[in-house]
Parts: sequence; C-alpha cells; structure tokens
Amino acid sequence: MKALVYQGPGSRAWEEAPRPNVVDAFDAVVRITRTTICGTDLHILKGDVASVKEGRILGHEGVGVISSVGPSVRTFKNGDHVIISCITSCATCGPCRKGMPSHCEGGGWLLGNTIDGTQADYVRIPRADTSLHRVPDGADEDALVMLSDILPTGFECGVLSGTVLPGDKVAIVGAGPIGLAALLTSQLYSPAQIIAIDLDDHRLEVAKALGATHVVSSRDGKAVERVMALTRGKGVDVAIEAVGIPATFEICQDIIAAGGHLANIGVHGKSVELKLDKLWDHNVTITTRLVDTVTTPMLLESVLSGRLAPRKLITHEFELEDMMKAYDTFGDAAKSRALKVLLRAP
Amino acid sequence: MKALVYQGPGSRAWEEAPRPNVVDAFDAVVRITRTTICGTDLHILKGDVASVKEGRILGHEGVGVISSVGPSVRTFKNGDHVIISCITSCATCGPCRKGMPSHCEGGGWLLGNTIDGTQADYVRIPRADTSLHRVPDGADEDALVMLSDILPTGFECGVLSGTVLPGDKVAIVGAGPIGLAALLTSQLYSPAQIIAIDLDDHRLEVAKALGATHVVSSRDGKAVERVMALTRGKGVDVAIEAVGIPATFEICQDIIAAGGHLANIGVHGKSVELKLDKLWDHNVTITTRLVDTVTTPMLLESVLSGRLAPRKLITHEFELEDMMKAYDTFGDAAKSRALKVLLRAP
Amino acid sequence: MKALVYQGPGSRAWEEAPRPNVVDAFDAVVRITRTTICGTDLHILKGDVASVKEGRILGHEGVGVISSVGPSVRTFKNGDHVIISCITSCATCGPCRKGMPSHCEGGGWLLGNTIDGTQADYVRIPRADTSLHRVPDGADEDALVMLSDILPTGFECGVLSGTVLPGDKVAIVGAGPIGLAALLTSQLYSPAQIIAIDLDDHRLEVAKALGATHVVSSRDGKAVERVMALTRGKGVDVAIEAVGIPATFEICQDIIAAGGHLANIGVHGKSVELKLDKLWDHNVTITTRLVDTVTTPMLLESVLSGRLAPRKLITHEFELEDMMKAYDTFGDAAKSRALKVLLRAP
Amino acid sequence: MKALVYQGPGSRAWEEAPRPNVVDAFDAVVRITRTTICGTDLHILKGDVASVKEGRILGHEGVGVISSVGPSVRTFKNGDHVIISCITSCATCGPCRKGMPSHCEGGGWLLGNTIDGTQADYVRIPRADTSLHRVPDGADEDALVMLSDILPTGFECGVLSGTVLPGDKVAIVGAGPIGLAALLTSQLYSPAQIIAIDLDDHRLEVAKALGATHVVSSRDGKAVERVMALTRGKGVDVAIEAVGIPATFEICQDIIAAGGHLANIGVHGKSVELKLDKLWDHNVTITTRLVDTVTTPMLLESVLSGRLAPRKLITHEFELEDMMKAYDTFGDAAKSRALKVLLRAP
Repeated sequence: MKALVYQGPGSRAWEEAPRPNVVDAFDAVVRITRTTICGTDLHILKGDVASVKEGRILGHEGVGVISSVGPSVRTFKNGDHVIISCITSCATCGPCRKGMPSHCEGGGWLLGNTIDGTQADYVRIPRADTSLHRVPDGADEDALVMLSDILPTGFECGVLSGTVLPGDKVAIVGAGPIGLAALLTSQLYSPAQIIAIDLDDHRLEVAKALGATHVVSSRDGKAVERVMALTRGKGVDVAIEAVGIPATFEICQDIIAAGGHLANIGVHGKSVELKLDKLWDHNVTITTRLVDTVTTPMLLESVLSGRLAPRKLITHEFELEDMMKAYDTFGDAAKSRALKVLLRAP
Repeated sequence: MKALVYQGPGSRAWEEAPRPNVVDAFDAVVRITRTTICGTDLHILKGDVASVKEGRILGHEGVGVISSVGPSVRTFKNGDHVIISCITSCATCGPCRKGMPSHCEGGGWLLGNTIDGTQADYVRIPRADTSLHRVPDGADEDALVMLSDILPTGFECGVLSGTVLPGDKVAIVGAGPIGLAALLTSQLYSPAQIIAIDLDDHRLEVAKALGATHVVSSRDGKAVERVMALTRGKGVDVAIEAVGIPATFEICQDIIAAGGHLANIGVHGKSVELKLDKLWDHNVTITTRLVDTVTTPMLLESVLSGRLAPRKLITHEFELEDMMKAYDTFGDAAKSRALKVLLRAP
Repeated sequence: MKALVYQGPGSRAWEEAPRPNVVDAFDAVVRITRTTICGTDLHILKGDVASVKEGRILGHEGVGVISSVGPSVRTFKNGDHVIISCITSCATCGPCRKGMPSHCEGGGWLLGNTIDGTQADYVRIPRADTSLHRVPDGADEDALVMLSDILPTGFECGVLSGTVLPGDKVAIVGAGPIGLAALLTSQLYSPAQIIAIDLDDHRLEVAKALGATHVVSSRDGKAVERVMALTRGKGVDVAIEAVGIPATFEICQDIIAAGGHLANIGVHGKSVELKLDKLWDHNVTITTRLVDTVTTPMLLESVLSGRLAPRKLITHEFELEDMMKAYDTFGDAAKSRALKVLLRAP
Repeated sequence: MKALVYQGPGSRAWEEAPRPNVVDAFDAVVRITRTTICGTDLHILKGDVASVKEGRILGHEGVGVISSVGPSVRTFKNGDHVIISCITSCATCGPCRKGMPSHCEGGGWLLGNTIDGTQADYVRIPRADTSLHRVPDGADEDALVMLSDILPTGFECGVLSGTVLPGDKVAIVGAGPIGLAALLTSQLYSPAQIIAIDLDDHRLEVAKALGATHVVSSRDGKAVERVMALTRGKGVDVAIEAVGIPATFEICQDIIAAGGHLANIGVHGKSVELKLDKLWDHNVTITTRLVDTVTTPMLLESVLSGRLAPRKLITHEFELEDMMKAYDTFGDAAKSRALKVLLRAP
C-alpha cells in the first residue's frame, strides 16, 4: 500500500509501505476512505515531537471501512464504516474509567505518533471497540472526518472545559482550524458574543462567516483593549486559547472577567507567565486538556441533526494519492488559505 | 387608575382602582407599559387558586417605567424602564441565598396572588432591587414581557431542570405557551431532536414553526409508541411535562429513556401515579420547580444577542384598556388560537 | 463443586453443580473466598423475580481468587484476588460509556439472575476486565465483599443521586442493610443530621451506633411529624428511600424540604402515589437508580484509608459450606437481627 | 472607643477612635465581643496593601452584638449576636447574584481595608442583612470567629474550588492558618490522603494532629519526590496552594496528577511560571478565588453538628484591650507558634 512516511525533520514521502495486519486480538484494520492533515503533523515534520521516529506513517484522523478484525473485537465486523478517534482507549484502565482516555494507560495518542497512522491506504487500530465509532447509513463521510480530532478537541478542550453557557461572552484567541472548531461547537451552547481574535484578516473573515459575532485583529497589539471595549470593561466569561504561545495565553489572561474561565487548547512548547499577582483574587478557572474524544457520540448526533456543520472547515479536497500536494497546500496555509484539507480514496 | 379585578369565581372587571403607593422602603411603583395574561390567571378566575381573594388585581407579568421608589431602593430610580419578575425576591433569606427565590420567605409569587398585580395602570413591586430587571436602551419591550414569567419558567423548570444537552432527544408534552417557551429555550442547548406532543394540530403546527424537529399528536392515544419509534425504541433523554394532568405525566414516564430526565412544569391539581415498579431501576431523575427567575439576566442576554426570539409567542396585541377583550381572546384559545396576548399602554 | 441452587419458589438447596469454565474470551472464572446474601436473593426465593429460573445458582456478591481467564482478558491473571461487581459491564456500549453499566447492553445485573452466581465454590464472570476490581495486598477481604453491591448501592443510588452535602439534613427511611449502607457512606460527605427511620427498634439502635444523629420510629405513624420537628418544620434536604413500598415512599414525600432531593433505592413491586398537587412547586428532585458500581474504586480508597468501615455491617459469619444455615439466619432477620452474613471459604 | 489603627508602614497603635454610627440605611453597628488577627493584617502593616491608608482601623473578622441598625435593615435588631463576614455583599449586583460577592460592585473586601474594621470596640457593617450571620443560641462564639474568614477561605478557595472528593489524594502546600483551615474543611469530604507540606516541623506536627494523613517537609527541596512516592508516582488529585509564592506554586504544578485540580488560595505578590509545556495535555484545572463567604451557613451547620471543630486553630487568647500584645504574638509566629489568636471582650 501507499503511505505518507516521516523521514526525519523536514522530510516526508508518499511511498510504498507494508499493509498492516491484525497484531493484537483487539485490533481492527481499516481501509482509509477519508483522511486529513493536522497542524500537529506539521510540528512532527519540523522535528518538534520527540516521540515520533523516522519511518513512521503519519496521521491520526480518518474515516474508513473495516477490512479485518481481531478475535476480541465485538462491536465491529468487516465492511463496517467507521470514524477513527485520534485517541485510542482501552476503556478499562483507571483514566479511561474516569472519562479521560487521553491518559489511557495503554492508549492515548498513538496513531501517527508511536504507531503508524491514517495517512495511508490502511491503518491498524488497537482497541477497536472503544476507539472507533460507527458511521450511520447515509451520513456525509467528508464531514465526519472532522470528528476524529478537530471537533472534539475544540469542543472538549475549549467549549466544555471553558463551560460556555447561553448568554456568555466568549473570546477565541486564534482562528486557525482548532479555533474555528471551538467557534463552531461553542454555538451549540448559544453564547451571546463570540469574539474571534487573530493576526490574519482572512482568518477573521472566515470566523465571521462561521458565526463569530465580532472579530478583533491582534496585529497592532491592541486586541485586549478592543475586547474590553466590546465587553463594557468587564472582560469575557470564557477565553479559549487556540494557538499555543505565550503571547496568546497572555491575551487570554488580560481579557478574562472575574469568575471567568480560560480554556487552553494550544500545544505549548515553553512555559508561560501566569499573572497570579493580578489573578489570585479574580476567581478564574484555567484548564488544560488533551482531547479525550468522549463527546464523539454527542457531536455525531449534532452533525446528523444538522445543528453542527463541520464540512465548513474543509477548504481543499484531494485524492488520497495526492497526499504530497495536500501537504504542500496545508503547509502553506498563509498563501493557500487552507483550513482543513480533505483526502479521499474511493 | 384602571385595573383588572377578580370578583370571585367566574367574574372579572376592568374597573377603577386606587393607584398604588410606596408602602415599604424597598418598594417601587411601576407604570405598566406592557403586560400579558397567563394561563394561571384563567385558573384563578375559575376559583381554583385558593390564595387569591375577591378584589385582587390580577397579573404577574409586565414591563414598565418606574414612577416612584422607596428610600431603601438603590438600583432603580424614577423613569427607569424595567422588566417585572413574577417572583419577588428579598435576596437575603435562606432560600434566596440558595438561588431559590420561588420559596423566598417574604416573597415568592405575590403579584396578582396575595398582593395586587400588573394588569393595571400601575403596580407596586416589593423588594424592587431584586425583583426588577433593567431594560437596556433600544430593546424591544414587547419581547421582554416574555421574560417576566413564561421564558424563565420554560427554561428553568423545563430545560435546566431537565438538563437538555447538545445531541439530546427531547420531548415536550403540551404545546401551549409554556411548552412553546420550553421549546424556544431548549434550542439554546442545541438538542438533536425536539418532539412536540399535543392534542391540537394547530399547536403542533406552531411548534414545528418554532423549531420542533418532530410533532406527535396524542389525540388517538398512540403518542407513546410514536415517540418510541422516533427514538429507535430507546425513549427520550429529556421529557418536559407542560400540561399538569395525570395523562400527560404518564406519557412522560412512558417515553423516558434509562438515565433520562423528566422535568415537570405543569401545575397539578391532583396526585399522579408514579410507576416505580417500572422506573425504580431506570436511573431517571424527576424534577418539579416553581420558576425562580434567576436566569432572567442570562435570557435577556440571549434575547439581546438574537439567539432567542420570544416575540414569536405573541399572537394578539391589544391596548391595555382593552383588557376584557384580551381576556376573552386568551380564554378562548381553542378558537382564537391565542398563545400570548400582548397588552400595551403608551 | 457445591452451590446454592434456586429450585423454584420457596425452595433452595446447597448441592453439587458443575464447575464453570471460561466460555467467552472475556470471561474469568473466580474461586469464591467470601460471599454474602442479599435481600434480593430472598425476593428471588419467594418467586418475585421473574427473570430467575429454576436451577439458577444465586448470589451476586463476592471476593475471590481468579482460577482461569479467557484470552481477551488483559487486566487479570490466575491467582489475582478480586472483588466481584454485582453489575457486569462491557465498557463499550452506549450506556457503559455514559457511566451507566446498570443498563449495559450485554451486561447489567446478570450474576445470580440470568447466569449462575457467586454462592458457589466457583463463578464465571463475563467481561472480567471491567466487572472485577483488584484487591490490594493486605486488605481485609471480609470488608471488601461489601463493595460488590451493598456499599455502591447505598452510595450511588442514595448518597450521590441524593447529592448529600456537608451541613445537610438527611433522612434515611429504612434501616435494613441497604439503608445502613447509605448511612455509612453518607458520612463521607459530613451531613449535619442523619435521621434514621424504621419500624424496628433494634435496627434504630444499630443505626445510632453506625452514625445516625437521630432515630425515629415509624411504628405509631408519627414519623413525619417527628422529622418535621427535628428540622424546625422545614423538612430534610435529602430523603433516601431504602425499603421499596408505597408507605415509605410517602414518608419521603412528606418530609422533603423545598429544593430537596428524594433518592429512591428501594425495589418497588407496584406503583406509588406521587403528590404532584403538593410537590409541583416544591423544587424537588426525585431519582431512581439501579447501582452502576462505577464508584467502587472511590469506595475502595475510602475503605483502605479507614474513612469507611463496612465491616460493621457484618453481623454473622459462616463457612461457605454452611450456606443453608446462613440463609436461615439471614431470612429470619427479625429474630436473628442479621444485617449482612459473611460466608467464608479458605 | 479603642481601636487598632494603622499608622503607616511598620506602625500600629491601640488608641482612642470615634465610635462608628449608622451612616447608610443598610448599616448595622456591632459591638465586638470576639475578633482575631489575619496574616493579611501583617501584610498591611508592612505597607504591602496599597488600598489601606494611614488611620484605618484594621480587622475583618469578628463576632459581636448588634448595637444599632439602619432603617433598611430587616433581618437583625439590637442585641442580636452575629458573625461578621469579611466580605460585604449587597446581594443585588451582578456578581452577588452569581454567588460571587467577593466581587460585589459596592462591597467585597471593605472591612479593615477601605473602611474601618473589626479590631475595635465597635464596627460599622454596611449591607448588614447580607453581610452578617446570626449566631444560634448557645453556640461557642470563640469557634465562630473562625467563620468570618479563615474557614470559608480554606473551604471555598481550597476545598470547593479544588473539588475534593471521597477517596481523593489531597496535598496542602503550606500549613499556616489558611492551610490548616483547608485541612480541617477538606475532611468534610473524606479524602483518602491529606498530605501537608511545609518548611516548619512544628506546623507539620500540628497538621498531623489536625488530620493530615501524611506530612512532608519541604526544607531540603525534596517535597515533590516525597509526594510522588506517597502517591505511587501518579501525583495528587488536588493540590492546594496556601502560601502565595512562586516556589510553592511550583510544587503544586509538579505534584498534580493528570486530571487533577490545583486550587490557589495564596495571595501572590508577583507572577509565577506556569509550565504549560508540560501541563498543556495534562487535563488540569487551576483555580484562583477571593473568598465569597457564601458557604458560611453550610460551615455553621457543620460546626454546630460537631463535624467541624475550628476552635482547634486557636492557639492564644487575649483580652481585646491587649491587642498590641496579641499582634506581637501573632507577628512572631515562628517563635510563639501562634496560629489564630483570639481576642475577647466581655
């Protein structure tokens, strides 16, 4: 089969790779019919993710059809259409029983990280029963690939951890794909204001089109004062950090109202300054979270009912075999204006 | 001034009444500019509400302008536009501190019950600081009269007590004004299905227009099996009772999924049968609640932001002085198809 | 091996039965070292539980040592000491993922019900990974048999569903084993008052010894007025129903404060009257629940740390082979004053 | 009357001051019968709290007897025994209605800060109805002075914000009065482990006596590894920061388990480093909070029922007029081993 293989920092190839087999009794092998590329994949290619070794097939998102299952798999059989969760869950360890499979003792983020991933013709999925979700008949599989990672990430780490409520004022710092996923899913809770903040005017336009009630450019360093003006000096009830650098985390601290929530989604490469001298008496809640994908059934219902339209995040479409071109496009988002690129196999 | 006065069972009059004054230091007197009639007012007129005595001015909903305030009122002054809560709250007693002003030791439901109400040119509001809400400049006051009672009732007693969540299947039994208020406000939480159930086809049409995803007639006694079919035999996550009779409470019991919530809003005149022999192991939660109006600020934000459009509940409009005609129309809802009637003074 | 076999209404025998084997890949077979008898077993013997057929080995509680495991079992191996949950959980179906294994699509209450149970030398446990809990080295296995059913039942269905909080006034109606389990576990949340109510003076004495702050006899029909007096006329914050008959459910309704919780644990054989005419505006929450045993790890930590001492529920001890005598004793609790009887094999 | 007056950095005097009167209709004047000194008072004396001006009477804790009330006060009358909350609440503003009187628009922390405080013969209490709590007949008033600030602070900012649960592993960093208040109140939720961490061996001994299951000295810089060893390498479910410096906040970050809570109580004078590069995927929740004193009724019930014994925090007792000596003792806690000093007037 063909697969996108990481060949060390800066280097990738779409090349022949051995087709995976069931190794463990709980495995399923899935033929990929849809996949996509995540910002994390670009980080890996830069060499920033130490756990990913040369020779690894990348990718942790996808929809496909089951081609074989191990003897311990109960829920799925050959031919079933499935959504692949980016998080592998055994459902039996302590963290899984607490609803936190991101820290599953034998699972967590494995795909395209410590085992081969989904940017390939086939992928092996450990613990298939609890790491896959059935695609209902007639569903739009293009849209559902957004349920592998990006929608649950925006929703769980941003919206739920930030406890967005009807009537709330919400700011989303960073209008890239993750921030936009938080933007789409926050609307499930009908906040009064959703303020999108970004350096890039085009992304702000997209945010507006996807439901932001206000957009704020942070290019001139005055985002904080604009948000404070929009909230009559009180700040926002929920600030969602969707970038992962000190500057954006600082904006979040500066715009959060007393009693507010700061939900971090961004992957941070270094520590940040936490202004406890100002915040110690501000009754704030700061959360971090690696997505658990425990809300996938809830989000799936929301997509099927039409309340959530994740297809809007897809800006470019490719054949699966055009993976290298898809990476070029996604990697040059500033120019291509790519959000999510969809790759499709028959 | 003029007022709608209860004159004993079956009898009401729009007649001259003394204009109220500030009696207690915490009072405000409000000139009514908008009011409406509640189903409860019809119950009172039938003689069903023992606490309401002859000579009482009815009405517990309204928007108006403050005309005088007692010396202990801090938040409001003459000329302020205000929404009147149907619940009077002292904010200091045990129940109020627990967020339950419906059981306020010196308040609760007083207006149009144990003291004179809002269907009049003027009304005295005790504990004004914590029983009124400021109308923001430029807001649609017609819509805001729905915040006195009906929207918080549908929202608090139905949607919040029933814990409607994104992706949920929700049934609302009874598509009268209260059920429709639950229908409108449940959409703030983006459930996947909202099934409205009623005997009356016209009300079901209205429910459909206001956002029900499915409607089910209960006229032929087969509502339960239809709901079970719509939910693939599992039942609903949330059943909201918005009628107040044993038959509708029974439907709710019969359609509730394991782990589901049954939120009672209806005012019941007699006890009901609770099928504990079936439900004891069904992991259900049943709630009752008199509205606390603690979510009025949240609902107000939702209205101002356009997420909630309560004006849709208003089917008929009258001048305040046409109160008797408004009662005729509202009282004959089967023919007039009235939901909420709006009464307006200049 | 030997086992306690149900032989139709009114009849049981301790007799030879075939030793169970691993049937399904997810099974474990456990050699029983501790077991006990539940009130439900007595109901079965009366013929009241239709799902239990003649020839069934009874019992759904126990501690033991694993003697064989199927190939899909990952967490346990031969020789491991384990607590058996009365609820079998696949951990993969919808209800299990929602934390409600009581309604597991392939599990739930199976042991001693639809498959053979724990009152035997050996028992087969389906879905062993997620239906057993490891016994820590050095733990008191006598105490831990209380974690199979009775403690999680009292805790989940009574204390958690009733949301007992520090400072609360709690009433427990029924001071049998289940009520006493609720009494012990409610103390984990430090309520201010725990009022135990029962017909039997001896049980009230036991309740007092186990931590009830007040005891109330219901023999003369004046329990309600006594509880109201103890709560200065306000009623209790939490009423826990631990009997399962209309009379006790009625007491709960009559003593619940506005805003309070009524948590039903009792197994009801018929419907009850729910006084919605009084309760519709009382802001109460009524819950039902079949135990999910999702809190077993939490309770185990509480036992190990000494915060919870379930051994106090054990009044009588027998050798496993004296099962018939143990049933006699437990079945005649009025005379024997039995709460939980412990059966022990070497 | 006499009062403890702040005379600029480093200087205080027990001197004659004018007896306060009712100024606002919502005021009460309280004759102080019990008061105490808070660590914050020492910060003020160092000149570290900019809002406190020369000439201010210090103190925000106390129990006393009402000597006069303004005309708008409804709940209290002359002669009533009351607990004074350190937080003044109007109960009507947005933050108060959200249960956050610490940020009350007209209140918050006023006493001994922006208005004269409780270390005096008399004190004026604004918004008396919602800033005082009635002392039940026969209660131990010595113990109740701990309800003004220190117990609700430890409980709300530490235990509740940290969501301590039965079975949890809890670490409290800092075993001074605030940390010990968190220690006492965390026991209301029956955690399995409570690990107290401090530099001072005597304080650790006290922590042990007050209920810590383990104590860890941080003097040699190895506290983190000791806590990790005590928790089998997983860290704690809840880390409570009760000091307010970067070093202790860092310990909390280093010992928090995945999915854990870090509840900051400490008053921080500078920003801290937040290790988001390690914590971004650790599913942690970090909270800050100024006490709201909304749990005072709950804590009062707990004290009255004997579940909570705050008197244990009192190490020294003085007559009110010996205020200067009490300050000397409390200010030299290293030598005097003072925790809370009680001052008493007849």
